Amino acid sequence: MAVEGIWEEKTMQLLKDKVRQEGIVLSEQVLKVDSFLNHQMDPVLMKEVGKEFIRRFEGENITRVLTIESSGIAPGIMTALELNVPLIFARKQKSLTLTEDILVEKVYSFTKQETNEITVAKKFMNPGDRVLIIDDFLANGEAAFGLARIVEQVGAEVVGIGIVIEKAFQPGGRLLKEAGYRVESLVRIGALSDGQVTFADEEGTN
Amino acid sequence: MAVEGIWEEKTMQLLKDKVRQEGIVLSEQVLKVDSFLNHQMDPVLMKEVGKEFIRRFEGENITRVLTIESSGIAPGIMTALELNVPLIFARKQKSLTLTEDILVEKVYSFTKQETNEITVAKKFMNPGDRVLIIDDFLANGEAAFGLARIVEQVGAEVVGIGIVIEKAFQPGGRLLKEAGYRVESLVRIGALSDGQVTFADEEGTN
Repeated sequence: MAVEGIWEEKTMQLLKDKVRQEGIVLSEQVLKVDSFLNHQMDPVLMKEVGKEFIRRFEGENITRVLTIESSGIAPGIMTALELNVPLIFARKQKSLTLTEDILVEKVYSFTKQETNEITVAKKFMNPGDRVLIIDDFLANGEAAFGLARIVEQVGAEVVGIGIVIEKAFQPGGRLLKEAGYRVESLVRIGALSDGQVTFADEEGTN
Repeated sequence: MAVEGIWEEKTMQLLKDKVRQEGIVLSEQVLKVDSFLNHQMDPVLMKEVGKEFIRRFEGENITRVLTIESSGIAPGIMTALELNVPLIFARKQKSLTLTEDILVEKVYSFTKQETNEITVAKKFMNPGDRVLIIDDFLANGEAAFGLARIVEQVGAEVVGIGIVIEKAFQPGGRLLKEAGYRVESLVRIGALSDGQVTFADEEGTN
């Protein structure tokens, strides 16, 4: 237990250091982390992230990891590797011809102000599956809710939702928890102001 | 050397078995491998793929791995992990506002019959970089050529191109080699006919 505690602390600290050193605060809503998470990626950090998700969801008998293209794929595949279960990434499309072979949900993007359809081939999601949802960011929770609805469409179970960076000043995390989901965010940002990142667990300390 | 030979053989065989067992021949041009490579992904296989690319490009002092969203990310991050260098994934967009901060190339998709712009932030590609390009598929070579031009725009060097599955009956591999690139394809498909996959190294044997 002591070792696990240290481990958790180390991964959190690595991520916080990266956010502080390389994150660019573009506005009070937008943090750019394209140097290590969603354009250029640090593979060793992604591996640690995968290990940390597995530690948090230990004993959950996860059968599949589900994420969404593109930035969820790297943390997702590292999590799936630790578990030795398949990773599925949902595809985003502006609109598509529906067929009976795919599961579809609509997801609104506040950033892009558009609704996308996210899809998963039906054959890769089964009623007995215990699914861990992984994504790089959590803001309003639209993507996570969409992925959860896809899992539930076939009667599979959402074991939990693992997020690398949660913008805790936006409502996604609260809404997901209110809906009954277990949400594990590795780093929670409390505020973006004056070009500075304040972490949720440090608010009021400076 | 003997051990490496066995290793290589094992990864190739794993991939060939997957292609044979799970690949769906949709036409003489199109092979669907969405159960392990580009929708659902097998993380253990992706890790083996990463190791095999590293073995083939050993001693090349690679400083960055470059791929393209979305299906290149999983084999790309596993390759980058083995090397402990960053992975960058180029983004695809139909059109965009150009800024001086990004490197852009046009890539034509024969499958979708449309031209996309692929982009990489300039700050992540430097003149001294030795870049390994990784992608899941090689057909006409448009994506690989586009990625190579992005690397060369800044005066960095393309060390080679690592491909999981090459459709060797399409001209991409030949064109890239004629242009002077080293191409390493883990599996080469010689033909897709009568719903059957024939591997390039087995042609004429049945």
